[in-house]
Amino acid sequence: MQFTAKEVSLLLNGTIEGNPDAIVFKLAKIEEANEGSLSFLANPKYESHLYTTQASVVIINKDLELTQPVKATVIRVNDAYSSFSVLLEKYNTLKLNKVGIEEPSFIHPDAVVGKDVFIGAFTYIGANAKVGDGAKIYPHSFLGDNVEVGASTTLFSGVKVYHDCIIGNNVIIHSNAVIGSDGFGFAPQADGSYHKISQIGNVVIEDWVEVGANTCIDRATMGSTIIRKGVKLDNLIQIAHNAEIGSNTVIASQTGVSGSTKIGENCIVGGQVGIVGHITLAKGTQIQAKSGINKSIEEENRKWGGAPATTYQNYMRSQVIIQRLPEMEKKIEDLQRMLKELQDNSINK
Amino acid sequence: MQFTAKEVSLLLNGTIEGNPDAIVFKLAKIEEANEGSLSFLANPKYESHLYTTQASVVIINKDLELTQPVKATVIRVNDAYSSFSVLLEKYNTLKLNKVGIEEPSFIHPDAVVGKDVFIGAFTYIGANAKVGDGAKIYPHSFLGDNVEVGASTTLFSGVKVYHDCIIGNNVIIHSNAVIGSDGFGFAPQADGSYHKISQIGNVVIEDWVEVGANTCIDRATMGSTIIRKGVKLDNLIQIAHNAEIGSNTVIASQTGVSGSTKIGENCIVGGQVGIVGHITLAKGTQIQAKSGINKSIEEENRKWGGAPATTYQNYMRSQVIIQRLPEMEKKIEDLQRMLKELQDNSINK
Amino acid sequence: MQFTAKEVSLLLNGTIEGNPDAIVFKLAKIEEANEGSLSFLANPKYESHLYTTQASVVIINKDLELTQPVKATVIRVNDAYSSFSVLLEKYNTLKLNKVGIEEPSFIHPDAVVGKDVFIGAFTYIGANAKVGDGAKIYPHSFLGDNVEVGASTTLFSGVKVYHDCIIGNNVIIHSNAVIGSDGFGFAPQADGSYHKISQIGNVVIEDWVEVGANTCIDRATMGSTIIRKGVKLDNLIQIAHNAEIGSNTVIASQTGVSGSTKIGENCIVGGQVGIVGHITLAKGTQIQAKSGINKSIEEENRKWGGAPATTYQNYMRSQVIIQRLPEMEKKIEDLQRMLKELQDNSINK
Repeated sequence: MQFTAKEVSLLLNGTIEGNPDAIVFKLAKIEEANEGSLSFLANPKYESHLYTTQASVVIINKDLELTQPVKATVIRVNDAYSSFSVLLEKYNTLKLNKVGIEEPSFIHPDAVVGKDVFIGAFTYIGANAKVGDGAKIYPHSFLGDNVEVGASTTLFSGVKVYHDCIIGNNVIIHSNAVIGSDGFGFAPQADGSYHKISQIGNVVIEDWVEVGANTCIDRATMGSTIIRKGVKLDNLIQIAHNAEIGSNTVIASQTGVSGSTKIGENCIVGGQVGIVGHITLAKGTQIQAKSGINKSIEEENRKWGGAPATTYQNYMRSQVIIQRLPEMEKKIEDLQRMLKELQDNSINK
Repeated sequence: MQFTAKEVSLLLNGTIEGNPDAIVFKLAKIEEANEGSLSFLANPKYESHLYTTQASVVIINKDLELTQPVKATVIRVNDAYSSFSVLLEKYNTLKLNKVGIEEPSFIHPDAVVGKDVFIGAFTYIGANAKVGDGAKIYPHSFLGDNVEVGASTTLFSGVKVYHDCIIGNNVIIHSNAVIGSDGFGFAPQADGSYHKISQIGNVVIEDWVEVGANTCIDRATMGSTIIRKGVKLDNLIQIAHNAEIGSNTVIASQTGVSGSTKIGENCIVGGQVGIVGHITLAKGTQIQAKSGINKSIEEENRKWGGAPATTYQNYMRSQVIIQRLPEMEKKIEDLQRMLKELQDNSINK
Repeated sequence: MQFTAKEVSLLLNGTIEGNPDAIVFKLAKIEEANEGSLSFLANPKYESHLYTTQASVVIINKDLELTQPVKATVIRVNDAYSSFSVLLEKYNTLKLNKVGIEEPSFIHPDAVVGKDVFIGAFTYIGANAKVGDGAKIYPHSFLGDNVEVGASTTLFSGVKVYHDCIIGNNVIIHSNAVIGSDGFGFAPQADGSYHKISQIGNVVIEDWVEVGANTCIDRATMGSTIIRKGVKLDNLIQIAHNAEIGSNTVIASQTGVSGSTKIGENCIVGGQVGIVGHITLAKGTQIQAKSGINKSIEEENRKWGGAPATTYQNYMRSQVIIQRLPEMEKKIEDLQRMLKELQDNSINK
């Protein structure tokens, strides 16, 4: 794929300064660009790069005043950053625009596959499964019996979706994520062994969700584990059985959410956080990375940190004091000694 | 699959009140049930649901006295909860009752496959591998050369078992778990690089073990990494080379056990715990979520918490005090000031 | 594979005591060995095992003086430990010496595959992908379009490499690791939802790197996420977009490195560590397991611990004091009481 500066400018509704026929065939950071690169400059702090870049074309803000000559062709737009984002997206859409059914693949005769889909080789689509129009199912993905995958959803290579789970439209699930594995439920027996509690529920993932690589979302014991619309989950996250993650909540890598816990909408949870089971976090809650949350949070839109967690302010204060503990201990010893002297004096008097 | 109230009652050795021909075809929580649902009521606290539920049939305890009319057909049994568990299990057994060998699959001519197995499409069974009677190997599973999988064991889609590993009977391994990857062993060299130490041992998983999705169990450098009978491992757990997990021990998600550590039987380890290498935990040890265990625990049946860990009581006490640190620091400052005044007074006298 | 004591001795340039025709066909620890085992004794502390072992052949240090009769054939070498390591390596190389292309596999007509490779069944090699000479690609691996895998590199079963990623020579990647999944980047919108920022960069893994099972390395937003030569990553690690890990750095299991962070060369990072984004760690930095690193480390070759981290000495001191907090609080109360008494006395005088 290659484009002229003129074609890019038309797409972005920009104005050209320099050679409109300059050719670009890749996107690059302005400081790493070379011939054939299309770059952008949004932050005026990095203006100097504009005068030294090897990029063929650079997108800049309409109102930027140039102070030196620029070798590259320049395209002026209202907002260089968002214009470049649009290009990134178009580039990626073209790049990942696979269509067709590769062989060998396994599509059960009772499965229903929509139009314009991509089904990679070695994909397994079970009985009564449904794949929506425009979905892309990469190689080695597994859809168990009765699974539904919505329109325009992408499952990258190696995603496993157990039977009965439902995935919405415009969802992206990254490689080797597991959806619908059994919840971790066992009944202790008198002899110290455990008896497995059958997990017959499912997982429901609503529209516009993104699930990271190697993330696990367990099926409910009964009912559904639910990931609401617009949730973004990073890699290596654990979502246990019967949990519910509210709309537009974002969770960073390696965090674990225990069974039956409900996280409100628009929350932001850092990486490596642990959240116990059977609690509720109010909407807009923000959790510092590595925290441990062991009770419900009822007040909305607050920040928390620590393990066990406290308000972010308390957490930060305690952290600072922990660093001062050796000094504090020294002060106490001094106080003990001085008080002893005073007491002795007092007695001696 | 659909059943009448009468059929269910016979199975559970119960007694019917209401229409014995009421038909059910799914299991649901009493408060979420609708027509065709079979539900249960075990906890008298939720008795009110019984009078409003849309379930067609509800299982209740023999001695429950009804205080209002019930629309659903009622089946009385000795213990509603355990009767319902029996049904869940039967339901799941029927649901997952796959048998047969799907194509394409790769079964090495020197592999031995038992009777009544399910081998999903795209499964790989290496040279001299053995699959026991009634085992279910879902699509995209990999059994390396010489791997043994016992009778009635289930490997869900994408499980990878490296060469020479041994898996017992009635084991369940969830999707994308990895059994037998190399232990993390490297010899530092004079130039700062590392030389890999070959890992020629294996992993042995005994009967009735369950391994969660994306969990990793590394092979031993020599000898075996051993998961004893009845152990339950949740998702995303790391078990390092030469570790041994004792019988009926349960470990929650995202915990890591380092090399050569031995955990006793009947232990309960919370989520996101880290356990260093070359230590031993006594049987019956319980570890609080997110703890760090850096030395052996010799006393049996005790609870530990914190990082580094201390007894659970100490841990809880310290956690409370950490929250009070700002207050403690204030008290010390007050003491310093007051003592200063006393000293000044004393001198002035 | 079986060998005589004489053959082993020749290979190691050793000298034999006992039967040179003794046959061995497996390697074992001296205390677990039985007939047909080849073992070694390096640490004189365990000398007693030499007189009781059932091994057929034992490798010992040249200068070890025997104090009792030894049943096994003995091979004396300069350094028993390193000689045995050599054998482990030869054993493993023979064991894993697979060559050939198994069917069914999917190799795009525009892919280029080198000589003497192993391509397991159900492997997917995309358009314009390149596989170097002697590479071993186990079943269910996925190489997206334009991926390059260097010579003598091994990808175990289920490794997923997204399009455009570059993997060097002599690299080992364990099962179900994911290379090149999208970085976690989203632009918040006015309505509380998030807009995905397309991730068009790639991952570059240099020579002699080892990547553990289920580890995830995200592609860069633009440019490359880079794993430098000789890096060793354990299982279940998260490396976020645009991070860079310096040469010969070793990272233990379940650690997470956030976006754009650069770790210097020859660092050692423990397990379950979290490192925030956009920081730099100096070369030779060592991080205690479970630590949280939230700012750059500029001084080279130092040890750090805690969350948030401090120098290792401070960390250890604070940890000890945290255990003494209840005692400290008691002392403060005592001081308050005694001071009160003194004040009262002082006033009463």
